[in-house]
Amino acid sequence: MAEQDNTQGATDAKGDPRLDSLRVRIDEVDRELLALLSRRARLAQEVGELKKTTDAPVYRPEREALIMRKLREANPGPLPGAAIEAVWREIVSACRELERRMRVAYLGPAGTFSEQALLKHFGSGVDPIACPTIDEVFRATEAGTVDFGVVPVENSTEGAVNRTLDLFLETSLAISGEVLVPVRQNLMSLGGTLEGVTRIVSHAQSLAQCIGWLDRNCPGIERVPVASNAEAARLASLDAATAAIAGENAAARYGLELVARSIQDDPNNRTRFAVVGRYECAATGADQTSLILSVPDRAGAVHALIEPLARHGVSMKRFESRPARRGEWEYYFYIDILGHQSDTNVATALEELRRNSAFCKVVGSYPRAVV
Amino acid sequence: MAEQDNTQGATDAKGDPRLDSLRVRIDEVDRELLALLSRRARLAQEVGELKKTTDAPVYRPEREALIMRKLREANPGPLPGAAIEAVWREIVSACRELERRMRVAYLGPAGTFSEQALLKHFGSGVDPIACPTIDEVFRATEAGTVDFGVVPVENSTEGAVNRTLDLFLETSLAISGEVLVPVRQNLMSLGGTLEGVTRIVSHAQSLAQCIGWLDRNCPGIERVPVASNAEAARLASLDAATAAIAGENAAARYGLELVARSIQDDPNNRTRFAVVGRYECAATGADQTSLILSVPDRAGAVHALIEPLARHGVSMKRFESRPARRGEWEYYFYIDILGHQSDTNVATALEELRRNSAFCKVVGSYPRAVV
Repeated sequence: MAEQDNTQGATDAKGDPRLDSLRVRIDEVDRELLALLSRRARLAQEVGELKKTTDAPVYRPEREALIMRKLREANPGPLPGAAIEAVWREIVSACRELERRMRVAYLGPAGTFSEQALLKHFGSGVDPIACPTIDEVFRATEAGTVDFGVVPVENSTEGAVNRTLDLFLETSLAISGEVLVPVRQNLMSLGGTLEGVTRIVSHAQSLAQCIGWLDRNCPGIERVPVASNAEAARLASLDAATAAIAGENAAARYGLELVARSIQDDPNNRTRFAVVGRYECAATGADQTSLILSVPDRAGAVHALIEPLARHGVSMKRFESRPARRGEWEYYFYIDILGHQSDTNVATALEELRRNSAFCKVVGSYPRAVV
Repeated sequence: MAEQDNTQGATDAKGDPRLDSLRVRIDEVDRELLALLSRRARLAQEVGELKKTTDAPVYRPEREALIMRKLREANPGPLPGAAIEAVWREIVSACRELERRMRVAYLGPAGTFSEQALLKHFGSGVDPIACPTIDEVFRATEAGTVDFGVVPVENSTEGAVNRTLDLFLETSLAISGEVLVPVRQNLMSLGGTLEGVTRIVSHAQSLAQCIGWLDRNCPGIERVPVASNAEAARLASLDAATAAIAGENAAARYGLELVARSIQDDPNNRTRFAVVGRYECAATGADQTSLILSVPDRAGAVHALIEPLARHGVSMKRFESRPARRGEWEYYFYIDILGHQSDTNVATALEELRRNSAFCKVVGSYPRAVV
């Protein structure tokens, strides 16, 4: 058959024997990888059988986080850590799926950054379930309709996602992981250049994120903050003298051409998501803990409130105060600290925090995301 | 340090020594996998160095298709072929990225099925570039601004994507791959049940795709075709007596609850995408070829036109006729045949087709997608 004869065609096409010999060696490595991967899958099946007898959960976030961390540490190169993680995300996801295919809810529709976060965390071996609201993600996860939920916590252009913070307070779910998704800002206009452009519009936070680039590349052009990046793109689509800073999506949606790509000053600009579930993670040695606290009297009390953290050597990673929407406390404090609630110093500090505060809830201890 | 002591915590949490011993063995396999993967990456780097001296392309679709096919054939289980492919997609993508990170254009915005097709084909080691129109994807790929483009060819609810077919005709780009993305139909309503529902609306093709399920599960409810699945969801969101059949996205977007998931009669319902570029694939032994033909006189001529295919044992996979939008021919015929244009029987048949037709263009020979 002519078709059969051509099987070699592709490999030989360049006709370079050195290339062919390298490809033969790559194919050999692939066969070894396949054998090893299948062995790993059989071991995972044995784990699954054992778990059935003890009713243990299919997914243990802390175990997967440890696997990733160890591999990144042991990685001899030349592949970057992010590539190792992308490969193992699919390996772990495929092996986990042999036990059971999990359902994970997220804030839909499909194609949002929430879905991207879900895939980054769970790999392709789960069923992603799009929910119309953040409330619905929490509800489905609490009801057990899904195994886990993925919700936005902090959006670099809008700050904290308030509804998520409210639901951390109101529901019984625990955070079992955080996911960071890179956010890129782009400059765009109708013509794809800055010629004739007299103002640049964007959300104030986006403008702030690109201030260095703007100062260097277009110091003379007026910057105007608007309600959102999407609104900025819409305005730019109506006026050739207006350029917008927004995500790449917006260029496609509003028919704009990119002037410059990825202009944010911090190349590691990210959006944060939380994985929520009915599961409490064990410690992995590189964890963080999310708390919500309140004190009856605000003045001066905050400093006293968090003093135990400093005294017991617990680092605070994030601190945010929000007016209470109901109840007797004026403010809630959302605090992320380094360490697991079972770590000795954290446990001691938490005990004192509980004594000093009018309200104290641990929303979860979970593995820190690798940046 | 308390944190250090807890490193073992996660592994020991269940306290089952059999589980721990299995996990130790999985970790050993992971270390071996990591060593092998790094060896593969170094070989890929050597390939990259060699290619620089000959100016050979970074991405050879036929080579990657062969790798996937061989692995699926050699796969001893227990992982399914799709999982093997998901893992290798990332392995191949990571190794390719060591040579150079490619840019791939697609019909944006991000989160569309086109982006999903791109990721399925290229893995995460490329820069996806969202374009506002199909024309823009072709233009960027022709201009060399991007390495490849991904465009929809056939949408199960709207049939052929006409603009893509036009551009196959008008541009110089070649198809170098096809990608199939599963499409699921879901039944949804405001209440999440069929109680009180008197009609089910959807695009006619979607209704047709679910006819078996509808006959079995709700034979008494009227079915009404509407302009699109999105329109169906919108109508259902306005009226509790109307249920819609649409993609899961639509439920999220219009605040509907799913009544039943994945109700299409064919579980393998898929949307087709093409990868276009300036690259001609060599044969892999399981290829297909896309042609556009025209004859001056339509009556009777079509049968004579394609007769050489049958005579030379070339199977036709797809046949579609479209009225010509310009030029002297009444109709264009879009034909997919099995085999590569360099296969003896295909080459002979093509030669005769060219003689018999007023117009004949080979849009590309490329590896068949694994379903």
